[in-house]
Amino acid sequence: MGDKNLDFLFNPSSIAVVGASVHPGKISSIIIESLKNSGYPGKIYPVNPAYEKIGSERCYPSVLSIGEEVDLALYAIPAGGVAGSLREADGRVKGAVIIGGGFGEAGEAGRAYEKELRDIVRKQGVRVLGPNCMGLYDTVSRLDTFFVSPDRIKRPGPGGLSMVSQSGSFAVTAMDELAAEGIGVARIVSYGNKVDVNESDCLEFLANDESTRAVALYIESVDDGRRFVEAASRCSASKPVMAVKVGRGGAGVSAARSHTGAITGRYEIYRAAFRKAGIIELEGYEEFIGACKAYGTQSAPAGNRVMIITDGGGMGVSIADACAGAGLEVPPLSPEAVEEFRGVFPPYFSVSNPMDLTGSATNGLYAEAVLKTMASGDYDIAIVAALWGPPGLTDDLPGLIAGKAGEAGKPVIICSPGGEFTRKKSALFRDLGLPVFTTPESAVRAAKALAGGGAIKRGRSV
Amino acid sequence: MGDKNLDFLFNPSSIAVVGASVHPGKISSIIIESLKNSGYPGKIYPVNPAYEKIGSERCYPSVLSIGEEVDLALYAIPAGGVAGSLREADGRVKGAVIIGGGFGEAGEAGRAYEKELRDIVRKQGVRVLGPNCMGLYDTVSRLDTFFVSPDRIKRPGPGGLSMVSQSGSFAVTAMDELAAEGIGVARIVSYGNKVDVNESDCLEFLANDESTRAVALYIESVDDGRRFVEAASRCSASKPVMAVKVGRGGAGVSAARSHTGAITGRYEIYRAAFRKAGIIELEGYEEFIGACKAYGTQSAPAGNRVMIITDGGGMGVSIADACAGAGLEVPPLSPEAVEEFRGVFPPYFSVSNPMDLTGSATNGLYAEAVLKTMASGDYDIAIVAALWGPPGLTDDLPGLIAGKAGEAGKPVIICSPGGEFTRKKSALFRDLGLPVFTTPESAVRAAKALAGGGAIKRGRSV
Repeated sequence: MGDKNLDFLFNPSSIAVVGASVHPGKISSIIIESLKNSGYPGKIYPVNPAYEKIGSERCYPSVLSIGEEVDLALYAIPAGGVAGSLREADGRVKGAVIIGGGFGEAGEAGRAYEKELRDIVRKQGVRVLGPNCMGLYDTVSRLDTFFVSPDRIKRPGPGGLSMVSQSGSFAVTAMDELAAEGIGVARIVSYGNKVDVNESDCLEFLANDESTRAVALYIESVDDGRRFVEAASRCSASKPVMAVKVGRGGAGVSAARSHTGAITGRYEIYRAAFRKAGIIELEGYEEFIGACKAYGTQSAPAGNRVMIITDGGGMGVSIADACAGAGLEVPPLSPEAVEEFRGVFPPYFSVSNPMDLTGSATNGLYAEAVLKTMASGDYDIAIVAALWGPPGLTDDLPGLIAGKAGEAGKPVIICSPGGEFTRKKSALFRDLGLPVFTTPESAVRAAKALAGGGAIKRGRSV
Repeated sequence: MGDKNLDFLFNPSSIAVVGASVHPGKISSIIIESLKNSGYPGKIYPVNPAYEKIGSERCYPSVLSIGEEVDLALYAIPAGGVAGSLREADGRVKGAVIIGGGFGEAGEAGRAYEKELRDIVRKQGVRVLGPNCMGLYDTVSRLDTFFVSPDRIKRPGPGGLSMVSQSGSFAVTAMDELAAEGIGVARIVSYGNKVDVNESDCLEFLANDESTRAVALYIESVDDGRRFVEAASRCSASKPVMAVKVGRGGAGVSAARSHTGAITGRYEIYRAAFRKAGIIELEGYEEFIGACKAYGTQSAPAGNRVMIITDGGGMGVSIADACAGAGLEVPPLSPEAVEEFRGVFPPYFSVSNPMDLTGSATNGLYAEAVLKTMASGDYDIAIVAALWGPPGLTDDLPGLIAGKAGEAGKPVIICSPGGEFTRKKSALFRDLGLPVFTTPESAVRAAKALAGGGAIKRGRSV
């Protein structure tokens, strides 16, 4: 069997791109371009028997002809040609990333190609990521095999969140959204049909990866449940691990099957496995992206008591409702806190939880509300629903809230629904590392994911 | 008792602004400015005994001194002064909008002020909207009493959606978001503490209002359940009526009480009343805004069978999962349709429901998928999840999809999650009147609201 440690995959010192092309629009050309743009520091070997040179660079007729051992071979050629080329490279590459589709997800011929790949993996010990995947986007090793134009799909900057996704488009979309939300990432893996490397392999690597501080999984299917629970447990012992399992029933199941050929299984089994492995369970894309934003900027809290601060009463009520629905507590202010606030706030402010600063809200009053409530021992998370209507709120507001949140050392989530002006101002919160949500319900989902991680941590430490 | 018909409120021919000021930052000044900006065609009378003129315009010492009957008096003065001024204006105004707070929601003194207002309404027959409300934003009569700066809170253009909200900030935020989403509105009412005019009065007016094609309600409490069910039933007989009821339990209930002094009652009672009245039940802000976007652009479908078309397999699976969770059907393609598509689509496309056009998607293939599936009798709603990664998708895509949707005459919902590029392209869909959602789950919530309206319509016609 091949290398157990996936270091050569996540931190390769050299890469061969099989199917390199002189045409700039080809997938292989986009990948070579992306590798260079992302600052990949290792050697890149273009491979294609059709060319001696691509631009000014030497092109090799085969992986074998490179003459040195190569960590990673990227295959961007039609399905039918992959097995032969990989067999030929035997012993000269540690691993391969097979980008293209046309395998298990694509009829009988594809299934035969995929079986051939599995045989090679079993017999030769080479490790394979894919096929039918996007490969890796990695800010630690500066890898980028995601063959989508950066004009259309932005890449996030460096950060502590790593993502492991069976679906390429899901990973691409989430990556693009995280970039827009200012959330950095460590490593993103799209593993597709997983003839070899799967979610459990990735979890084992990420468990010991110092660059990764939280892990988000998108799963259509898990083949070896016991190994998955073991790998995830090891990983969740040192960092939050969250997962969405799609293909839950009806059309979703058959869609997942035709998507990556996955046998999806009953959802209840996955739920039990997640619980056993200390995984935070997420429902769908919405909870997934929300949890990524939350864990990309905040840490799990010590409990699930939420303080809600707003300048719009109706929005406060809506957040409180959503908290109740999500099983989060919204405890009332202590009598001492009420008295203290009553001494400094105008009489028409609603001094309770939710706290409503009304249209007379100012930066200073918001800061005071955040600090006084969060510095007390009464709350674990703050949801601050800053509606930008009141003229007393200015560009200094986000800095003041972030500052007070920092002093209190507790997670803060911003809920800022609205239109153009509000959407622009949201960038001020994001730049300060606070996650911004556009509905009460999405803010509460993020709080729930954070609280869930806290509960798992406490459960382990008991 | 006062005028039963609220025409003078929604279509006033003259307005007195009590508490008009020479200072431009004052609420009264913002309101007069807004009325002028929105093109209000009636007479505006500034009222304040402190000034003879405001700018170049005559200012009246009292409503009485105007010398003519006035449809509407707007009160933007402290709570303590309202009752006296309103009593004095007896017989000279048909109705009053009391903007300011400091009434039932604000302690003992406030409750006494509010009781005084209720007495005046009962004895004198003048109709009152508020207090503690934003009043009206109305594109039909060109009213705008929403005292928030248009720099911060944009006003939607004309459209068929009307909104009735107990909470001012909720209405303001929704209005601003609808403006950003390109959804037009007819009339928006914020009714606050409702000493007189309430949701039932508004529903009675809107039932017969030709400018209103759909009604969205935000409710904290209903006092007269029987009258509400009657009014809502009449309204829902001719147009979709949807409602969110907040203050459902725990902190939400007490927050709603301190917000508008409402006694919120048990949610199950509201749910039963909604069902009886043919109201589409919405949960929270998220479903509210989604349903507004859906009914602001689309009509209720004939059934709940959803066709999902995407170029990202994982996103298709996620939408199918969300549909299953929402009780929407995702029926497979008919064998005839499969055969037809197989003849024209590449073999690696997933010809099923969800349909996955993969990274090889083009404008033309999308258009074909939308038209062929929606023109058949097999589906009632389309959710099109266009991920903008594939280079074959260009700015012509939204027009083609909107065109084919139009030919089929069925509602289409766009699901377009992602970052900067995607968010920019979403405007193309919006400009063509298609509602855009940024997560699979939010698109499905909108589809569910539309399907719910369809089911109510069919239930009535049986």
